[in-house]
Amino acid sequence: MKRKDDFEWTLNSVGRNVPIEIGGRNLRPYSGHLGIIPEKKREVGRPIRHHEPGKDKVSRDIMDILRKVELSDGMSISFHHHLRNGDSLVNMVMDTIKKAGIKDITLLPTALFPVHEPLIERIKDGTIARIEGSLNGPIGRYISIGNIDQPVILRSHSGRFRALAHGEIKIDVAFLGVSSCDAMGNANGIDGPSAFGSCSFLKGDAHLADKTVLITDNLVPFPCTPIAIPATDVDHVLVVDSIGDPAGILSGSLEIASDPVSMTIMDLVMSILKEADLLKDGFSFQAGSGGISLGLTQRISDLFATKGLIASYAVGGTTRYLVEMLEKGNLRKLLDGQSFDPRSIQSLRTNRDHVELYVDQYSNPYTGGTVTENEQASFLSATEVDIDFNVNVNTHSDGWLLHGIGGHQDVAYGSQMNIVTVPLLRKGNPIIKEEVLTVTTPGELIDMVVCEKGMAFNTLNARLSHVQRNMDLEDKCRKAGLPVMTAEDLRSMALNCGGKDIMPEFGEGVVALVKYIDGTVLDFVRSLK
Amino acid sequence: MKRKDDFEWTLNSVGRNVPIEIGGRNLRPYSGHLGIIPEKKREVGRPIRHHEPGKDKVSRDIMDILRKVELSDGMSISFHHHLRNGDSLVNMVMDTIKKAGIKDITLLPTALFPVHEPLIERIKDGTIARIEGSLNGPIGRYISIGNIDQPVILRSHSGRFRALAHGEIKIDVAFLGVSSCDAMGNANGIDGPSAFGSCSFLKGDAHLADKTVLITDNLVPFPCTPIAIPATDVDHVLVVDSIGDPAGILSGSLEIASDPVSMTIMDLVMSILKEADLLKDGFSFQAGSGGISLGLTQRISDLFATKGLIASYAVGGTTRYLVEMLEKGNLRKLLDGQSFDPRSIQSLRTNRDHVELYVDQYSNPYTGGTVTENEQASFLSATEVDIDFNVNVNTHSDGWLLHGIGGHQDVAYGSQMNIVTVPLLRKGNPIIKEEVLTVTTPGELIDMVVCEKGMAFNTLNARLSHVQRNMDLEDKCRKAGLPVMTAEDLRSMALNCGGKDIMPEFGEGVVALVKYIDGTVLDFVRSLK
Repeated sequence: MKRKDDFEWTLNSVGRNVPIEIGGRNLRPYSGHLGIIPEKKREVGRPIRHHEPGKDKVSRDIMDILRKVELSDGMSISFHHHLRNGDSLVNMVMDTIKKAGIKDITLLPTALFPVHEPLIERIKDGTIARIEGSLNGPIGRYISIGNIDQPVILRSHSGRFRALAHGEIKIDVAFLGVSSCDAMGNANGIDGPSAFGSCSFLKGDAHLADKTVLITDNLVPFPCTPIAIPATDVDHVLVVDSIGDPAGILSGSLEIASDPVSMTIMDLVMSILKEADLLKDGFSFQAGSGGISLGLTQRISDLFATKGLIASYAVGGTTRYLVEMLEKGNLRKLLDGQSFDPRSIQSLRTNRDHVELYVDQYSNPYTGGTVTENEQASFLSATEVDIDFNVNVNTHSDGWLLHGIGGHQDVAYGSQMNIVTVPLLRKGNPIIKEEVLTVTTPGELIDMVVCEKGMAFNTLNARLSHVQRNMDLEDKCRKAGLPVMTAEDLRSMALNCGGKDIMPEFGEGVVALVKYIDGTVLDFVRSLK
Repeated sequence: MKRKDDFEWTLNSVGRNVPIEIGGRNLRPYSGHLGIIPEKKREVGRPIRHHEPGKDKVSRDIMDILRKVELSDGMSISFHHHLRNGDSLVNMVMDTIKKAGIKDITLLPTALFPVHEPLIERIKDGTIARIEGSLNGPIGRYISIGNIDQPVILRSHSGRFRALAHGEIKIDVAFLGVSSCDAMGNANGIDGPSAFGSCSFLKGDAHLADKTVLITDNLVPFPCTPIAIPATDVDHVLVVDSIGDPAGILSGSLEIASDPVSMTIMDLVMSILKEADLLKDGFSFQAGSGGISLGLTQRISDLFATKGLIASYAVGGTTRYLVEMLEKGNLRKLLDGQSFDPRSIQSLRTNRDHVELYVDQYSNPYTGGTVTENEQASFLSATEVDIDFNVNVNTHSDGWLLHGIGGHQDVAYGSQMNIVTVPLLRKGNPIIKEEVLTVTTPGELIDMVVCEKGMAFNTLNARLSHVQRNMDLEDKCRKAGLPVMTAEDLRSMALNCGGKDIMPEFGEGVVALVKYIDGTVLDFVRSLK
């Protein structure tokens, strides 16, 4: 574990101390939500291949593939997380790498899930030396107490792709599960017994990795279509019995929050949307799979159905609630970065207005423009928010690193109205803090926070172009009799209700860095004693 | 005009003298059909952009766009040819560039058509200084008599994309017509009044040009889907009244050849396919828009319908004949690089088994593998073939440069059986030559040539892996009573029928270079007196 003393530090523009160098790489402190202008003019290019017609790419032997890609000590490998908690590939590949005696691997997953807990053994035995990627659950917990030498680097969806495209990270070999694939490597995620939906997160890895290995349990005749991953980006096709457990790949029953606190929060958000005059034809929004987000989707869908309104588009994290809105004709287009349930996959397979996105299109700000930019509203969650509207989604208030950034920063960067919904208290812990433990998304990107007892608008440190609008909206909401207050008021209410801040017992270690989408450092995560 | 004396020459592996340098760029002689191994490890990357959310990309003023992209003397600009002879954009943009007083432009179109004849004035007035791209018709004729300083560089579809991706050419600004587009630049070619179908050839230009300008006559609400061109690759959207004339964009009535010579050639090809045992479930083939190719498609379609067979896939140049085969269920998948008629566009819009290709997937051999590689047979045309099976599609026997390479080399590189169909004579000119005027596709890639009087198999200088198969097939065809002979025999028959070779009166000028897909030089085109 690296300790605080091992680094030199500087202050960034959200007031956090951050290291200026790690493992020989220079780091830049976060300096504003629009991001730094990169010095490079062009992205990293795709590797040049030269496939001789007729040459066979298929193997059924993972060890054979490791030899063919010449995997060796110190290399970087990547995986995607579309198989979520049903994934059987990361553990399988890492076990084989251990058997092959290869050490000192840098793991660059898009995200790791509880199912990947066995990787702890691969960290202990030296197979894995470094991780740059989202950690959800046990591995985050393991890392929190200082069990890895280099701090884990956390990036958002687009931040990871930017890092890859700008040469900040490099994948030697990408191991990418696909649910339908032909012998040349044309592939998708919507067909086959292990269908997982949108291939959004694979595309960049397949395109830019030095070597790309697709792994499938469903080899189909050439050409496999639709072509989410083109054979042009693929070196090898590994056929296995199963890429994962469908029960874990799909959440199955995503539930709308129905507790009174969440219901009240939804009421308030709907009232704000009404005051903002957004609930009309052309509305566009971002909705994920959280219980409140699902509930808001359902309410918007019902309202639009009742009034005969048509929303312009929604971006997900798609679920059956968005699909139903699309099918009822109250949503024109559904843009899909991740598909969370069987209904979403079925829709993606058959509905031309349900469109698979590339992570680049979803949220890479270093492009001509993304789909999040035209969103009129987004519903974001948080583990903590502070009185400056900074959001933490990585660590719990007790200090444990248990979540990745996901698309939190990305959506906040693009969307025109970022609404954070949180309860005042979770198990007695006030969620509005003086200062969040970890800054995941800078407060300047957040327009308001909504709790069950009231709402607070960011009129002081919001994006310049948003300050006036947030003030106007605050005014309208107050006039409409909504419980408008300040973030400090919300915090006071939580404290007055008996809320008590948790005081984590930190050690001296630095276990993770939180990067902004532009690659600058927002914050670091401390070790726990 | 450059003269032969202006260059140093070397002999390439098809026996042609080719220059070793042009305009300060080194050239490599063609050295074999598998192509050279590039020295670079990675392709050129996409330009890094940084679009600020909310910034408007739309303009209705082309002069305004020229200022915004900072177009200046000596720059390179590109266009695509999906609007074919209906295109109104190339002339419009070039006229505006002249009005802006910008000179010395390098034109990098995918292809120019007769409708672009007015560009001759832009060459004369110095607006256009160099052309690298396919020339079909009047501009080729104009170039043939030496009216441009630097030789035109001719490349195949994939050769052009490879040159772009490998940094051999660079596009400063791409001006790309699209038939449906939103304000951010998500676009396709299948919707709108000027629909042209597959966007295959735009994608590379949009992705790799320094600046990308989409031009549309059909601005639609965000998000325009399907997304053939993503907004991530787009800097500006120019809205005009019309991008082209639908009558010229779509060929409308592509006709099957019905003359006796063509009919006999089709009979012979069908017999060969039968002897090769290809006319069964799983057959895959390439069929374009030529009269014989269409006739063969129709015959295969009819045969498969009668026998209840299902072909695996076809690649086009799509036409209603392929669409009908798909719709009748005798073709599993239709892969679309260009869409030639309204029926094809309608099918592309609605049929999930009709799939839009990227030129990279279609034919770029410097990738993990293309769709042409699994084709069991291709039907190729020629202006001339020689007794070594070299094919000329660029110049007519009278020496005029009137055609681009198209996908000729690309298909020949990938497809497993390349069948060239030509009549023995065209207007008294024997089509089988001692030596073709211009080598477009090297003979080693051609497996057989079929004329109305007989067929000749390439058993001497075919690809090594093909020699035995071609000998076996020759044997089978002979045993089946088909008119098997040598290419020399075919030439003799043409001469005996009164055929007389045309002797062009060449000047000393070098008006064009023909490149192979790997960037090496196959041949040059001489000026005419």
